[in-house]
Amino acid sequence: MTPKAILFDTFGTLVDWRGGVSAALARLGEQQGITADWLALTDAWRGAYRPSLDAVRRGERPWCILDDLHRDSILALLPQFGAAGLAPDVEALVAIWHRLPPWPDSAAGLRRIRRKFITAPLSNGHVALLVGLSKAAGFEWDMVCGADLFRHYKPDAETYLGACALLGLPPGEVMLAAAHNEDLAAARHFGLKTAFISRPLEFGAPDGRAKPSREWDFIVDSVEDLAEKLGC
Amino acid sequence: MTPKAILFDTFGTLVDWRGGVSAALARLGEQQGITADWLALTDAWRGAYRPSLDAVRRGERPWCILDDLHRDSILALLPQFGAAGLAPDVEALVAIWHRLPPWPDSAAGLRRIRRKFITAPLSNGHVALLVGLSKAAGFEWDMVCGADLFRHYKPDAETYLGACALLGLPPGEVMLAAAHNEDLAAARHFGLKTAFISRPLEFGAPDGRAKPSREWDFIVDSVEDLAEKLGC
Repeated sequence: MTPKAILFDTFGTLVDWRGGVSAALARLGEQQGITADWLALTDAWRGAYRPSLDAVRRGERPWCILDDLHRDSILALLPQFGAAGLAPDVEALVAIWHRLPPWPDSAAGLRRIRRKFITAPLSNGHVALLVGLSKAAGFEWDMVCGADLFRHYKPDAETYLGACALLGLPPGEVMLAAAHNEDLAAARHFGLKTAFISRPLEFGAPDGRAKPSREWDFIVDSVEDLAEKLGC
Repeated sequence: MTPKAILFDTFGTLVDWRGGVSAALARLGEQQGITADWLALTDAWRGAYRPSLDAVRRGERPWCILDDLHRDSILALLPQFGAAGLAPDVEALVAIWHRLPPWPDSAAGLRRIRRKFITAPLSNGHVALLVGLSKAAGFEWDMVCGADLFRHYKPDAETYLGACALLGLPPGEVMLAAAHNEDLAAARHFGLKTAFISRPLEFGAPDGRAKPSREWDFIVDSVEDLAEKLGC
């Protein structure tokens, strides 16, 4: 039952993108003398994430990294939120996602788990983003699986199975840990084990998304809790 | 002048493949009651390395990972060394390269350098091999660049430039550290900075290969020495 490697979803599972992005937007806005509903803009930016990934997944848009998708969606959103004055800072906006605050248990939990298991992020972020984010957050890995290694976004098969292939392990010896039921459903479909990490604050107020929708192999409240249950 | 990321060649530069492979062969031979000149077999196995990589590089052989090349070359060599009795253990033989003794300065030097720089191996080994080898040797990385990420072997451009692209850095902000002049010559040709780490014992007795053939950006005797010169 115990896997040899554990892959971790990143945005929402290990880092607080909502708190981090909204705070960084507010800082940049303040520097430029712009006020706006930064939390609402953050939610709208995240709202554009899945449709933009799906356009690539369906082949309507050629492969590009998350920075490119983030750039296009924020440029489209800024005027709607009265923040068009931030457009010249678009590279700084895109870079916000390279440095996000970790949930308090993430770095310590990952460190414990890595003592006994092979660990890697498996994210729709690209390697450069994940390397920067991990260094800033104190995450230590055995490998970094960015979507650019596979030129596919989750939940495409190529990401889950590509990560297993790179690690030289059959899917049954690999587990995905994520705060998102649909990510885990895809991982289970492709033969991986699953760990649900509940993150009730990911979208602000707790809602149904923070609850497990199935009997995942592990259901925990934090990475430290997962480390505990894995005997690390 | 100072780069942002430092890539490290692995076999010979960070680990003692000759000492490690010959000792492991001797252990396996002893278990099977076989005696042979294990150092000579090790040298012959390593001798087959470059020609086997070049067959892939020239397109004479479809892409395959180093394990596959190692398997074919050792199976061809065993009878010549009176060690055909080890053929049934070929997977154990191939796995020897996944766990090799580090040079005494490697792990500590890498840890120091990683505090200030992005670090990754850039090896003709594949990710699974490098992950296993790094975990056993205590090497910690920000990314792991195995040849399977690029489906090319050094000194093909795709490896050096592919690693830079994954890290999101122009070649001029990346440095290769290696014990091999030809590896550094290719890296410099593609715009990377270069650090020569002298490893006089790599091939047994010291010879000309342990001497720098050009004025590389750094010329050092160990990874700790490189850390020192980089101010880490």
